[in-house]
Amino acid sequence: MGEMTSPVPWQDIVAEKRRECAQKIPREWTLSAEQLSVPPHLLEFDLPRQCGLLSELELDLTENFTAEQLLVKLASGNVRSLDVTTAFCKRAAIAQQVTSCLTETFFDQALDRAKYLDEYFQREGKPIGPLHGLPISLKDSFCVEGLQSTVGYVSFLKNPPASTNSGLVKLLLQLGAVLYVKTNIPQTMMTGDSENNIFGRTLNPHNTNLTAGGSSGGEGALVAFRGSILGVGTDIAGSIRIPSLCCGVYGFKPTADRVPFGGQVSGAMEGLPGLKPAAGPLAHSIADLQLFMKTIIGEGETWQYDQTALAVPWYSSPHAISERNGVLTIGVLAEDKQFPLHPPVKRAFDRAVELLSRAGHRIVKLDNQGKEETSVAFSSRLSFEYFVYGPNEDHISPSGEPLVASVAKFASPMFTGPWPVDQELETFEKIQKLHEARTRVSDAWRQTWVDQKLDVVIAPGSQSTATAYDTYGWPPYTLIWNLLDYPACIIPFGKASKELDPEKMETGDDVQPDYHPDEVDGAPCAVQIITPKFQDEKCLWAADIVDKALRA
Amino acid sequence: MGEMTSPVPWQDIVAEKRRECAQKIPREWTLSAEQLSVPPHLLEFDLPRQCGLLSELELDLTENFTAEQLLVKLASGNVRSLDVTTAFCKRAAIAQQVTSCLTETFFDQALDRAKYLDEYFQREGKPIGPLHGLPISLKDSFCVEGLQSTVGYVSFLKNPPASTNSGLVKLLLQLGAVLYVKTNIPQTMMTGDSENNIFGRTLNPHNTNLTAGGSSGGEGALVAFRGSILGVGTDIAGSIRIPSLCCGVYGFKPTADRVPFGGQVSGAMEGLPGLKPAAGPLAHSIADLQLFMKTIIGEGETWQYDQTALAVPWYSSPHAISERNGVLTIGVLAEDKQFPLHPPVKRAFDRAVELLSRAGHRIVKLDNQGKEETSVAFSSRLSFEYFVYGPNEDHISPSGEPLVASVAKFASPMFTGPWPVDQELETFEKIQKLHEARTRVSDAWRQTWVDQKLDVVIAPGSQSTATAYDTYGWPPYTLIWNLLDYPACIIPFGKASKELDPEKMETGDDVQPDYHPDEVDGAPCAVQIITPKFQDEKCLWAADIVDKALRA
Repeated sequence: MGEMTSPVPWQDIVAEKRRECAQKIPREWTLSAEQLSVPPHLLEFDLPRQCGLLSELELDLTENFTAEQLLVKLASGNVRSLDVTTAFCKRAAIAQQVTSCLTETFFDQALDRAKYLDEYFQREGKPIGPLHGLPISLKDSFCVEGLQSTVGYVSFLKNPPASTNSGLVKLLLQLGAVLYVKTNIPQTMMTGDSENNIFGRTLNPHNTNLTAGGSSGGEGALVAFRGSILGVGTDIAGSIRIPSLCCGVYGFKPTADRVPFGGQVSGAMEGLPGLKPAAGPLAHSIADLQLFMKTIIGEGETWQYDQTALAVPWYSSPHAISERNGVLTIGVLAEDKQFPLHPPVKRAFDRAVELLSRAGHRIVKLDNQGKEETSVAFSSRLSFEYFVYGPNEDHISPSGEPLVASVAKFASPMFTGPWPVDQELETFEKIQKLHEARTRVSDAWRQTWVDQKLDVVIAPGSQSTATAYDTYGWPPYTLIWNLLDYPACIIPFGKASKELDPEKMETGDDVQPDYHPDEVDGAPCAVQIITPKFQDEKCLWAADIVDKALRA
Repeated sequence: MGEMTSPVPWQDIVAEKRRECAQKIPREWTLSAEQLSVPPHLLEFDLPRQCGLLSELELDLTENFTAEQLLVKLASGNVRSLDVTTAFCKRAAIAQQVTSCLTETFFDQALDRAKYLDEYFQREGKPIGPLHGLPISLKDSFCVEGLQSTVGYVSFLKNPPASTNSGLVKLLLQLGAVLYVKTNIPQTMMTGDSENNIFGRTLNPHNTNLTAGGSSGGEGALVAFRGSILGVGTDIAGSIRIPSLCCGVYGFKPTADRVPFGGQVSGAMEGLPGLKPAAGPLAHSIADLQLFMKTIIGEGETWQYDQTALAVPWYSSPHAISERNGVLTIGVLAEDKQFPLHPPVKRAFDRAVELLSRAGHRIVKLDNQGKEETSVAFSSRLSFEYFVYGPNEDHISPSGEPLVASVAKFASPMFTGPWPVDQELETFEKIQKLHEARTRVSDAWRQTWVDQKLDVVIAPGSQSTATAYDTYGWPPYTLIWNLLDYPACIIPFGKASKELDPEKMETGDDVQPDYHPDEVDGAPCAVQIITPKFQDEKCLWAADIVDKALRA
């Protein structure tokens, strides 16, 4: 490793990048030391109002509308993109200063684009596209011309700025969106703590002593702070859903390749058989998740932007549901005893199922733990074996940077049982055996859906709520749906409460988090709604019904 | 190899199987030695009428209706399924005796099912499903309960009959179809000659001195003979399209996994990154290809039958075409000089383009040979590298059977240039580099489509027409679309003619067929229509417009 270390100490390279990043935030939007001394419960504290940087209009625009409503206002000339963009830029700048949720900021370009769009609207008397003038935030892995995508690797600071936009970025611009920030991720993008040695650790705005989740943790924090009305993350094990559930926002992991994914920087080896990541939205409502999916996919012209994207339209009438008056058959995922639910998570989950039952939906308790193929722990081990069976390029040691704590811990599900496929097999045979195991899992879940006539499955999103730093552990309840490539939606529901759940719970392994009532008091809880692959439309349609039942 | 040889000589095992197969054809449907002495141009000779086995009604039902029309008659009680099924069973039995197009026949079960469906119709006054009573033929690789799927390997004769139906078979039965025969394939399913040591060689009913194509060669011959109105093949390099173009029928290779593919027997190693096979129809018209796709896929409930099948509906209004009054922008694939077109193929292709131009369509000559990524030969070499980079289980030597001639020849495209990826690389690195190369190819074709604003590409289906036995060679013009997973449709158009193309042409390599005017005189020609992946609806919609222009 010594030989590969860069001649300039990594700390100096990072310091330089941080200076650059800091300078990109306008002086008039920077908080004083006094303003920066905030309590951990940032959202409760309401810093955007307290600090006085946002006008009443800006507070109103960032707080009281959905993306859908803002688009209506923008498309009718009721509000200028410059006003909306300024408001979200300011609020994002504030979020950054107290949660480290951003990587690249480009407020100047955003404001220029907003002006351009306003002029277009003035001149043409109509919006330029269905996302006319709406600011949208992006995970750091997306490439935007002229900006870096370091994804938190110090060694990537040497890379030149992107010379082309990712497919999704091209499409968003084509549709009329305004891009203004990219958001923070963990080193390696494979942990539940969005920390790296360049941009630091993203904090949870509900409680800055807790993780914001990962890997799209910057998005989770920024959206929760309402520094973004609509953000884009990616998810190969829970990376959209974990920040969503940690930060109390809505998040949707679509079937892979329905949203253009190509042209991102990941540092991971591509092309090996395994789990496929998907890009998808984080937002404040199911309606805004639907807005994103429907607008991005539309008539299925995504393929023009990216060779990975599938020309499958977003269809407005999901599979075979119209005749049932919105009554769902809901499978309830059984808890895996090897990944026991923390009391607040269990309480919220049970309460959700009860409310759905009362609302008249048909509830089916699943026996998923009854056999290996459908068990949560087995799918975790199989996914883990896919994650580690190939070589990984080392992007860390070349710069000399250390591992961050959550990466150094290297959480794994292997305490739950043996490798699904013999580790010693020759590569081709191992690939074949992994494929066979995965096919068995897919077929067992397909059969479960058919036998039980399920519309959706409801499941916890996680064993825990947001946890103390670097303790999130392994994500079995999100990961299983990546192994299956099933769309899955996080719906915030309930809060941890030390009054209602006063007893500490220890998981008894050294991978998964224990429950500490004081530590997570007030943290958001959530449920997860799942459909089989390519039933994204139905997943969000059902999630909307569930969401309404939970809020009734 | 000696140790693995079965104690019973393979010839004896095969003789027993052949006896069984022969016995399954009712004595009254067997042809006399005199009836079997037929000229090579079977279709011209009109054996079904000449032999006297079919009634006028049976001749009428098998010759004068599309599948769509038969379904209308069946659904209105205008004709009984028993009559339709008997007619196609008889005609298939005749086809088998002169072309060896079948593997398993199960006429008794088919007639029982037809009676059951007729009774259902009598009792309920309505059809049981959208394919009520229609006989459909299947490639041997599909599993039908109680029947073997040997796919031409003598060693597979030891396998017990299938205990469950393939996903597609379940779905076809659910929709009301009648299954009656499975059809012949090549040993290994990877050549253009459907010959194996169990079922012999499938002959081309246009001219029995020519190959019927492969690997779904039995389907091609059976459909051309009108022993089937609608057949199902599979295609990983051209296996639906090659028999279609050789036998002068319509054939459609969809995007992979739109038609349920799972639960087939192939003998190939599954799960390695590479080209994905697709199941699809062979028929007598575009309308019947559409009927198959629309009925099988419907609202996207295919996923219930098979974990590979994607829940993507068949949408009736294809991508962004309605506003253009059926005027297409058609990219014309340039000939690859390393795979020069035989004169009749070139003549038919040029004529087709001319007719399309005259019909008012916009014609764009593509520069696909201008760079490696879009060139036909490069895509062949890349596909070939995928085909051979992994281990292959040997299903041939265990029985002691020899290779058939077309397999022994082992056609390859490597005379056209170097391996796209270094053959010596370690497995993981090779997989990654293959993936990179394939991504470049996909991206270049996506860009071509976007830059040229193409609706479809028109291409030859092959360098040649059907050729003399064991000379078909390597299939570059079909294979390129498998590498891309693009849907592709074969439209029969024109005939080889020794008058119009009297000059012999030599390809100058020892892999590809030479053109011999006398040998292929009268053989069908064809064109191929292609769209990007998942635009199956648009591909068939455009193919219909093209077909009509070519027949106007």
